[in-house]
Amino acid sequence: MKKVEVGKKILSANEEYAFKNAQILAEKKCVCLNMISSPGSGKTTILTRTINELKGKIGIGVIEGDVQTDIDAEKIRATGAVAIQINTRGACHLSAKQVSDALSQLALDDLDIVFIENVGNLVCPSAFELGENGKVAVLSVAEGDDKPAKYPALFAKAKALLINKIDLLDSVGQEDFNIGRVNADARKLNKNIEIFHVSAKTGAGFAEWYDWLAKSVKKTVGS
Amino acid sequence: MKKVEVGKKILSANEEYAFKNAQILAEKKCVCLNMISSPGSGKTTILTRTINELKGKIGIGVIEGDVQTDIDAEKIRATGAVAIQINTRGACHLSAKQVSDALSQLALDDLDIVFIENVGNLVCPSAFELGENGKVAVLSVAEGDDKPAKYPALFAKAKALLINKIDLLDSVGQEDFNIGRVNADARKLNKNIEIFHVSAKTGAGFAEWYDWLAKSVKKTVGS
Repeated sequence: MKKVEVGKKILSANEEYAFKNAQILAEKKCVCLNMISSPGSGKTTILTRTINELKGKIGIGVIEGDVQTDIDAEKIRATGAVAIQINTRGACHLSAKQVSDALSQLALDDLDIVFIENVGNLVCPSAFELGENGKVAVLSVAEGDDKPAKYPALFAKAKALLINKIDLLDSVGQEDFNIGRVNADARKLNKNIEIFHVSAKTGAGFAEWYDWLAKSVKKTVGS
Repeated sequence: MKKVEVGKKILSANEEYAFKNAQILAEKKCVCLNMISSPGSGKTTILTRTINELKGKIGIGVIEGDVQTDIDAEKIRATGAVAIQINTRGACHLSAKQVSDALSQLALDDLDIVFIENVGNLVCPSAFELGENGKVAVLSVAEGDDKPAKYPALFAKAKALLINKIDLLDSVGQEDFNIGRVNADARKLNKNIEIFHVSAKTGAGFAEWYDWLAKSVKKTVGS
């Protein structure tokens, strides 16, 4: 009978790559944030505004995950930032191997933050570690206030939640999107989650998001 | 050497259940429509309005797929219609086996249409046949007009596309949601797709959707 080595964690192929990604990012003192949401919640618009407004202060690079097209990567590149496109060709989430390949194409020495924009999907991407420092959930006001309850996995794991498109709050109506309910449901799953109420269209609420990003960078460089 | 039987299609377990579901639905002369979209596009609100407004004319039952909770099934039951809840406990799509179990709990003799409300996910559910007569895609105006291009699989397969929340069109703005672009991109993927512009909140555009449902039912019963 073969002796089983107890306590040795057997990593999946994905976890192995995630572990290596985390090591590389730590060596380069890069914060890595994995942005996850439904399609159309506004991840790309949040990133383009963030890059434009933090230009010269925080160096940002982006890894863009999409089933098809490079529409989003082109929007990021229009800001002047580097974006590495990954097309999953049907797959519903990014893998750590894909992120590893993309990281090797980024000049990490020049970057403070690497944003990973995952495939638009509120279910699958939260189950795959990519080596990130944290997951950031995005939820658009137009999606309805029951999403943390109905799709708990992401909200339970995310370090931050951006409730986006608050400019649509009046049009959507309090009966379909009660911000208090979203805050409460998200905090029930995850008492430490940071919640920001933002509009990537108007810029409302972004100052707090930028403060949080700046603190995250400071924490990672250890200064 | 063993002789290989050429031409015999080997069905996956999912396809076998889908095939059986399709047979049962055909015997009972039920139309089955598989509703697929991102979370929060308005599938449940479309169904509750449809059930309420077609009451007494078309017998409707619902199979509700959710990762967690029975929030949506309760909304359907409030209309008086029967809703069978499937909780996938983390899985990102419904399987034909789950639908088979749900179908056995529905009084199909009393129903003209069985709607399957799939898990909110624009990627995975379109890859799993459930035995339905057709897939119906739902896209909310708030999700942006690039979705058929970025998530082509569903739009290429769907028999119908409901562009929902057209009441938000002015608030979202033409620059973020150009209906002409969505129509053109969807038809490029699928020239026969039926497209309806609706608001489940106001009822706009539902008359055409109901006509299409009535025709689908008529076609199935062969009258």
